Amino acid sequence: MTSEHITKVYDAELQRLRETVADMGRLAAAELQSALAALAARDEEMATEVVGSDQLVNDREYDIEAMAGHIIALRQPMAADLRAIIGAMKVASDLERIGDHAKNIARHTMTLSKLLTTGTESKLLEVGGAVRAALRRVMQAYIEQDSASAREVRSNDVAIDRLYNEVFREILSTASRDAHGVSAAIHQAFIARSLERIGDHCTNIAEDVMYMVDGVMPQDDRPKADETAFMTIEE
Amino acid sequence: MTSEHITKVYDAELQRLRETVADMGRLAAAELQSALAALAARDEEMATEVVGSDQLVNDREYDIEAMAGHIIALRQPMAADLRAIIGAMKVASDLERIGDHAKNIARHTMTLSKLLTTGTESKLLEVGGAVRAALRRVMQAYIEQDSASAREVRSNDVAIDRLYNEVFREILSTASRDAHGVSAAIHQAFIARSLERIGDHCTNIAEDVMYMVDGVMPQDDRPKADETAFMTIEE
Repeated sequence: MTSEHITKVYDAELQRLRETVADMGRLAAAELQSALAALAARDEEMATEVVGSDQLVNDREYDIEAMAGHIIALRQPMAADLRAIIGAMKVASDLERIGDHAKNIARHTMTLSKLLTTGTESKLLEVGGAVRAALRRVMQAYIEQDSASAREVRSNDVAIDRLYNEVFREILSTASRDAHGVSAAIHQAFIARSLERIGDHCTNIAEDVMYMVDGVMPQDDRPKADETAFMTIEE
Repeated sequence: MTSEHITKVYDAELQRLRETVADMGRLAAAELQSALAALAARDEEMATEVVGSDQLVNDREYDIEAMAGHIIALRQPMAADLRAIIGAMKVASDLERIGDHAKNIARHTMTLSKLLTTGTESKLLEVGGAVRAALRRVMQAYIEQDSASAREVRSNDVAIDRLYNEVFREILSTASRDAHGVSAAIHQAFIARSLERIGDHCTNIAEDVMYMVDGVMPQDDRPKADETAFMTIEE
């Protein structure tokens, strides 16, 4: 093999790694979208399908780790290439967690769909829409290696946190005090929490993109506004 | 530099990486222990300290990633060494998440300590004890590179899931229906969930140890028994 040939093979391997990460992002986004559709429709069957589909996302992470390990071992990459490979593994790890949270949302939706609920779903779906937009934008930033756009996603997480505070307050204040109402409130709170966590994972991915492109992690503190741990029902 | 000298420096770098991961494990374990002590004592001040201490754990992950990147770039490690380096980064990522969950437990404890509670803390502390034991054992398995012991931790996670189911059922069934009772139930449910997640991260670390030592990820499914997403209050 000529060295030119080796370079071409190496470039193709890096390209395939990037495409697999982008593809995993699409799978995770589809899983989240289906989980939110099941929540909107209180559709237990659709939610059950989401739980089953999470394995596809997990399998993709395994593929990415194997590819990355292969490239590191064979090509001994340096500098920007090494950052791209380690970055791909880190993005895959966050996408796997996003899939897990989508699965959790679906699991709690299966239970919620059997309970009388208080109508907090519309607010949950609003948080869901914001989180889906963040995932779409940060994966676009990854594909285009667009550090400025990644930074915007990171800054915007504070808006997701504020929505999460609002929905959490609404869950607490509208929970009816019968058994179904208390159960529903707890399951809704878990769904809200999973959505907020997906937002955090999008922020992680944004930071990974900034690291890949700029070579440094952002040094300023992450903007955070989650206050739910301190909320109680006012009498 | 002679090649023998280079080898010695390289070995020392790998050793320092392992020791930093072990040290990060001790910091995360101390954070968890303090969070549980604050919960047991309903001590808001102690819980506030735990929240502040989480940054120490996060900083350590950053150090480990920098060290690992440096070794990969300079030494171009192969096979077992490469697995050890990638494994160290993965263990650090799970320890960072464990620290995050300990911080969350402390945050919810700050709120719980102001509410009238139903006495579910004793059951939460039982789960906490099991999770602390899992973390201690899996980090010992990492330090000793003991694959068999890691496998035991992985198998035992199902016992933590069962304890989590029990405590979740108790939270739902004993929640008093006044405002404080419902608020307390939600915050207790989040603490229980964080403990269960720490158990999952210990399972991740166990699988990383098995991968480092044996060169393959365990192929059998993870034993899981978490059923809380489907629980409701029985009338």
